[in-house]
Amino acid sequence: MKLTKRTELRRAPSKGSHDWKTINPILDQGFLAHVAFCVAGQPFVFPTLYGRDGEKLYLHGSAASRMFVELATSIPACVTVTLVDGLVLARSAFDHSMNYRCVVAFGHAREIADPARKIESLRVISEHLIPGRWADVRGPSEQELKATTVLEFWMEEASSKVRTGPPLDDENDYSLPVWAGVLPLEIRSRPSISDEKLIKGISIPDYVRRYDARLNRGTVH
Amino acid sequence: MKLTKRTELRRAPSKGSHDWKTINPILDQGFLAHVAFCVAGQPFVFPTLYGRDGEKLYLHGSAASRMFVELATSIPACVTVTLVDGLVLARSAFDHSMNYRCVVAFGHAREIADPARKIESLRVISEHLIPGRWADVRGPSEQELKATTVLEFWMEEASSKVRTGPPLDDENDYSLPVWAGVLPLEIRSRPSISDEKLIKGISIPDYVRRYDARLNRGTVH
Repeated sequence: MKLTKRTELRRAPSKGSHDWKTINPILDQGFLAHVAFCVAGQPFVFPTLYGRDGEKLYLHGSAASRMFVELATSIPACVTVTLVDGLVLARSAFDHSMNYRCVVAFGHAREIADPARKIESLRVISEHLIPGRWADVRGPSEQELKATTVLEFWMEEASSKVRTGPPLDDENDYSLPVWAGVLPLEIRSRPSISDEKLIKGISIPDYVRRYDARLNRGTVH
Repeated sequence: MKLTKRTELRRAPSKGSHDWKTINPILDQGFLAHVAFCVAGQPFVFPTLYGRDGEKLYLHGSAASRMFVELATSIPACVTVTLVDGLVLARSAFDHSMNYRCVVAFGHAREIADPARKIESLRVISEHLIPGRWADVRGPSEQELKATTVLEFWMEEASSKVRTGPPLDDENDYSLPVWAGVLPLEIRSRPSISDEKLIKGISIPDYVRRYDARLNRGTVH
């Protein structure tokens, strides 16, 4: 990929990478992106779901949403996905840190107009979030498709940053009588809540019951 | 607070609010913000920890970090905090949604130069993330303070969006033989990992053992 000042890893370059082999697993585990764009020098950043197809991310939203109207004009965008893996508690305030994996991608989005490609992109987003769901549900109608904007965001440049492992204290601080270590964090599901209007005899699908496996598929504590 | 086009709730205004009573609990439960800024029309968005003091957020980072160097010049910034509460599985692809709480705040950051105020702001960030920790650890040295930039970000405008509750399907879809409901999600801790270099006789503090209470203190599924 192209590399410019935008993705230069200035801080702690040892934690960083421009390698898709590091970047893609982070994007594949995450499901929430924060998407930034500028309008007349004013930055905006909003959360959105996504799906990945090679070096493209698919984003979808209401055709009326400000973000999708702006992004569809192909202005520069920045998409960031952050996975929080744990709190790193050191003996000094200064050496506290966080274990995390983060991808920052720069590029431009283009609207997908063709209905067949649009449906396929929506399938990719759905399967990214809940593998197995798409086959079970009613697909989008013509009217629903019209009300939805789907964008393909080309990751022209991307970088990842990853921190893992224990706290790193100053040599002098190791003798302090302070607990230090890592508190791992992860996203977990709670028991699903069936809709009250569910018709009888429908059981909870496996992809819902076993969702935690999808959530934390790349986590190493 | 001031309200302009930036925070106008265009999409689903019923989910939105400009009320600090709704905004503050979201900011107080969250701990990771995504901060966006523009440099020559190029948007950047990076994750960072924060603490809240009234209508200000404190941010800290390396004095060498690109984001903190840029933000310290008081360019317009946008800070977004998103809490994911669950997946909303409807009978149609279109009506799938997410239960979430999100705050988007616009404003400018200013550097805190005074060492006493700087330490106090760092304490606020630390206590926001891990209440009780600050009193246990070695405080920042003069040199560590110099290596740290602390910013106060004034939330000149802010809005929240919240979605809760079950899926809302089209009337015709309720008869479909498709499981529908909510899969609640939350951040949870796993058992803490004590540092290998810990001196003997130090037990895990309560604020670490009971961290889940802090993590999900405002969640209603």
